[in-house]
Amino acid sequence: MASTAGQVIRCKAAVAWEAGKPLVMEEVEVAPPQAMEVRIKILFTSLCHTDVFFWEAKGQTPLFPRIFGHEASGIVESVGEGVTELEPGDHVLPVFTGECKECRHCKSVESNMCDLLRINTDRGVMLNDNESRFSINGKPIYHFVGTSTFSEYTVVHVGCVAKINPAAPMDKVCVLSCGISTGLGATLNVAKPKKGQSVAIFGLGAVGLAAAEGARMAGASRIIGVDLNPNRFAEAKKFGVTEFVNPKDHNKPVQEVIAEMTDGGVDRSLECTGNINAMISAFECVHDGWGVAVLVGVPSKDDAFKTHPMNLLNGRTLKGTFFGNYKPRTDLPSVVEKYMNKELDVEKFITHEVPFSEINKAFDYMLQGASLRCIIRMGA
Amino acid sequence: MASTAGQVIRCKAAVAWEAGKPLVMEEVEVAPPQAMEVRIKILFTSLCHTDVFFWEAKGQTPLFPRIFGHEASGIVESVGEGVTELEPGDHVLPVFTGECKECRHCKSVESNMCDLLRINTDRGVMLNDNESRFSINGKPIYHFVGTSTFSEYTVVHVGCVAKINPAAPMDKVCVLSCGISTGLGATLNVAKPKKGQSVAIFGLGAVGLAAAEGARMAGASRIIGVDLNPNRFAEAKKFGVTEFVNPKDHNKPVQEVIAEMTDGGVDRSLECTGNINAMISAFECVHDGWGVAVLVGVPSKDDAFKTHPMNLLNGRTLKGTFFGNYKPRTDLPSVVEKYMNKELDVEKFITHEVPFSEINKAFDYMLQGASLRCIIRMGA
Repeated sequence: MASTAGQVIRCKAAVAWEAGKPLVMEEVEVAPPQAMEVRIKILFTSLCHTDVFFWEAKGQTPLFPRIFGHEASGIVESVGEGVTELEPGDHVLPVFTGECKECRHCKSVESNMCDLLRINTDRGVMLNDNESRFSINGKPIYHFVGTSTFSEYTVVHVGCVAKINPAAPMDKVCVLSCGISTGLGATLNVAKPKKGQSVAIFGLGAVGLAAAEGARMAGASRIIGVDLNPNRFAEAKKFGVTEFVNPKDHNKPVQEVIAEMTDGGVDRSLECTGNINAMISAFECVHDGWGVAVLVGVPSKDDAFKTHPMNLLNGRTLKGTFFGNYKPRTDLPSVVEKYMNKELDVEKFITHEVPFSEINKAFDYMLQGASLRCIIRMGA
Repeated sequence: MASTAGQVIRCKAAVAWEAGKPLVMEEVEVAPPQAMEVRIKILFTSLCHTDVFFWEAKGQTPLFPRIFGHEASGIVESVGEGVTELEPGDHVLPVFTGECKECRHCKSVESNMCDLLRINTDRGVMLNDNESRFSINGKPIYHFVGTSTFSEYTVVHVGCVAKINPAAPMDKVCVLSCGISTGLGATLNVAKPKKGQSVAIFGLGAVGLAAAEGARMAGASRIIGVDLNPNRFAEAKKFGVTEFVNPKDHNKPVQEVIAEMTDGGVDRSLECTGNINAMISAFECVHDGWGVAVLVGVPSKDDAFKTHPMNLLNGRTLKGTFFGNYKPRTDLPSVVEKYMNKELDVEKFITHEVPFSEINKAFDYMLQGASLRCIIRMGA
């Protein structure tokens, strides 16, 4: 691998030239990593709703052409100046948010909202020189959340790279670099159900099912899945969901339905849809005295969370989380270990696999609601 | 004292005959305690805003005639059937909320919202027979929050009685049976600031100052007091408040003022006014990533707490508390011990003292905003 260090690499990348249009396989030039950067050979990547959201770019200021992708696994090809923690050959997961290890957030045990490397969906360039490392015929192709993993090679800030166990199967653990860890950590690190407690999960997509998987791992006695799509329950059972509530089946608020099912409310709830009404229901369905609700799904810009303050004074707690409160570099390797020692089952999240050349199929599966995670095999 | 056990006691009580009218000193009959009840000789009582609120009875369904009072200290005179934990002569604090030790809340280490004995401001009778123990010429005088301490003798459910160290000075520790413990516990048990952290306190009345006292005890580095009344700052300094913000002095929201003072927000905040805008400010002034806001003040019926959910997803936590999360019987004796071993300073909360015969003066002091706590000496 040393032969390419310091040189521009020409490789295949799936470029989004405009909003909502199929990606186009192109040959791109990937510049060498600069100070505190790492160039990674991507082996597997997967598609997450966030890619689709910014690819569709509805109601956004679009930034194109761009290389999407942020759930992935790969091998370090070369490192830039100042990078001491990583070396060529290391197995890594690139992450859409970072950990500089220097700021107040990184120094706080409670926060993973790094001041320097916190997710930035508007920025399409690298921090070091405010330029892109990708180009076609000298014209820049923009980065996405600092990862851009829909490319055979990518350049990432060292603070956004988790070094993992080299024995971990890369085609599986790639899904741990975003959605699965987000849901899992929301339960294990934030909601923290105790053994035997009841947990409600709003939204049974990949993040919600990962939250359910966390509840199962924590020994929850009841895991109540809430979703508007009744087809999701059969699959949800594999993730430990024991009961299903479809708000459409009831003519009263779902928080009242859950309170009746559980003699006053669940012990913990997790909101994984981003819908504002689901957020309010998820909060109001927890038991007074000790219930904890955790918001995971990303809301719209103009949403307002609204509740009667008495719901709080009666002993309920409302929290939110970002990336499951995991610090990318410090904590993600331990999530991979949970998979390696069979505490965490990752395979059941992977419903599809396509070669890189057919990456647009992964978008189709997700838009049809057919997939949880579709693995995209690079170099194929 | 055994001579009165089982008999009706005739004694003085300050009766509220109608809403907002001065209390009238009357001779009342106090029936013996029934099953699971305790008759207490009150030695000292103090006046709390909650007494005044229900005495004014604005916008409420009024329940009169009634004997108010819920912050007090006294000695057990006799006990009813089934009471094994207390005996005549025990020094006690009656409490407006209870702990049955049998329900799910009492069995949870996290909750103090007892299903059986949780505060009920509408009920004017005892649970055992739905009747009052107070009467004048055979006509009932109603109880208030199960305590009615503006009487030389009162009857209280055993679950609402904390047995305390008999060496504790009763004229001081009476104030620990409501407001001071509420503020103190909100900080020590719920907000839990770490040594060196910053804390904002909204509302510098007795509860807010007790919250500040908790922050001082926890080793907070900065305690920022927020109040609309600039006269409160001088007094607040005695309680560890280091800085003062008057929202009236600024033409931007107070949460922005505090964020600027603290490089992004305080580590912890406590809302002790019950004003809905103060609640929102108290939440939004905590630092993202790790900030915790605790609601203590009781809101109005029609209030709505409203914030952008992103404020939660960015790592803030919103909690509420009732009676500082103290379980009355289990935890209150330890608060008295904090005073006995000089960790907690109670004297500075006591600004006035009147004999029982002048109890209406205590109302005047509070309505004028002149007092923090006015002790009412019984038998005088």
